[in-house]
Amino acid sequence: MPPEVRVIGIEGVPEIQPNDDLGGMLVDACHGQGTPLESGDVLVVTQKVISKAEGRVINLEGIEPSALALQISEGHRRDPRHTEMILRESRRIVRMDRGNIISETHHGFNCANAGIDASNIPGSDTICLLPVDSDASARVIKQVVKDRTGVDVAVIVSDTFGRPWRNAAANVAIGVAGMNPLLSYVGQEDVHGNMMYTTVIAVADELAATSELVTGKLLRVPAAIVRGYPYEPMEDASIQALVRDPDKDLFR
Amino acid sequence: MPPEVRVIGIEGVPEIQPNDDLGGMLVDACHGQGTPLESGDVLVVTQKVISKAEGRVINLEGIEPSALALQISEGHRRDPRHTEMILRESRRIVRMDRGNIISETHHGFNCANAGIDASNIPGSDTICLLPVDSDASARVIKQVVKDRTGVDVAVIVSDTFGRPWRNAAANVAIGVAGMNPLLSYVGQEDVHGNMMYTTVIAVADELAATSELVTGKLLRVPAAIVRGYPYEPMEDASIQALVRDPDKDLFR
Repeated sequence: MPPEVRVIGIEGVPEIQPNDDLGGMLVDACHGQGTPLESGDVLVVTQKVISKAEGRVINLEGIEPSALALQISEGHRRDPRHTEMILRESRRIVRMDRGNIISETHHGFNCANAGIDASNIPGSDTICLLPVDSDASARVIKQVVKDRTGVDVAVIVSDTFGRPWRNAAANVAIGVAGMNPLLSYVGQEDVHGNMMYTTVIAVADELAATSELVTGKLLRVPAAIVRGYPYEPMEDASIQALVRDPDKDLFR
Repeated sequence: MPPEVRVIGIEGVPEIQPNDDLGGMLVDACHGQGTPLESGDVLVVTQKVISKAEGRVINLEGIEPSALALQISEGHRRDPRHTEMILRESRRIVRMDRGNIISETHHGFNCANAGIDASNIPGSDTICLLPVDSDASARVIKQVVKDRTGVDVAVIVSDTFGRPWRNAAANVAIGVAGMNPLLSYVGQEDVHGNMMYTTVIAVADELAATSELVTGKLLRVPAAIVRGYPYEPMEDASIQALVRDPDKDLFR
């Protein structure tokens, strides 16, 4: 049998409210659509629903933009209070040019607008921040799945980031639980006997990208099951393994 | 029925030689393993087998390293003749530091070592260059599939690139035929009525990343079928749609 992986979108999840039991709702939705979670599944959950459940959708009323936020926003579409929140959610500005802000979040992710956006949330004056600790978000969901179904899954929190050099955005992983987010071939020999010295694959990012094929942006499919991928289980997994050491980064 | 995508590795492809009919061999392998190609499939083919079929595996004998290539290689593992070929396959050096070369290839891809490597090829003095025109490579395979089976597929050529800011590498698309490599949501409204102003997804990259879950690096699975993804057919598709305009790139 050829190697095969299935990617199954999870439908039927209601609009998420703060403090909702997102993990439990995903378990129910999987069951309801006839694809209950199985041991070894990777459950990829989009950041937006996690942020909603964790109360990270905030109203801009009462946010006081700084002088810098006002200045950056001038002549651009973004509300200065939204810009203010980008600055507050950043620990370092990487580039700030032509209305764009590329910054490093408190987690260490380099991305546009500190991962804040205003799509797929209700209200015109609301924005959505990244989870405070997206590894913890993944761990909570993993534990709920275990408690509710007895099944061991890996969980990835996905978000859609732009990249330097290449047009358009693609999904990456911003949180992980239960699996090694990296797959290293270092020290192994290929079929021709060549030693592989440096090859390490960011499988968590590839799994996040895979899930986007079924979640999309408009389909009310906030999560996906990736079934059949033989990940390496890891108890103390962290997405920090994907954050490049500043000393080794040529593009800060 | 929930949305579902299947990712099927293609096994049983013999070691590829120059001028082999790679497209025909993939058709045969799909048939042989009981998963013949179907209309609407995305056939993702790894760069390595395409380069092999196109005679882009070269022997370093007779390559004369320049003074610059000798200097860059000093104190590092890489053969100066290999370094010389990286320089020749580049049209611009992006960064050159600590033995690393990040350059822009003649296609416009920004990547390490101009996409040249020495893994998964026979011989100790050989290296593998990127295809000269990876869109053309994809088109040839698409046409062979059509001629041999009557089936319309999209074809993506994948390669494994490192990225700034994030550890490890992930698959991206370096060639495309038959589908729009981008999926734009610009001008559409989400379920809450928010207009999406900027969201464009690099679906070709996500499909390439997806395929890596079954191809891996050591499995002799040089290609994959992604089945069930509703791509937008496009006759004159080109991966240049994913190459960011230098004027809009903040990270050159």
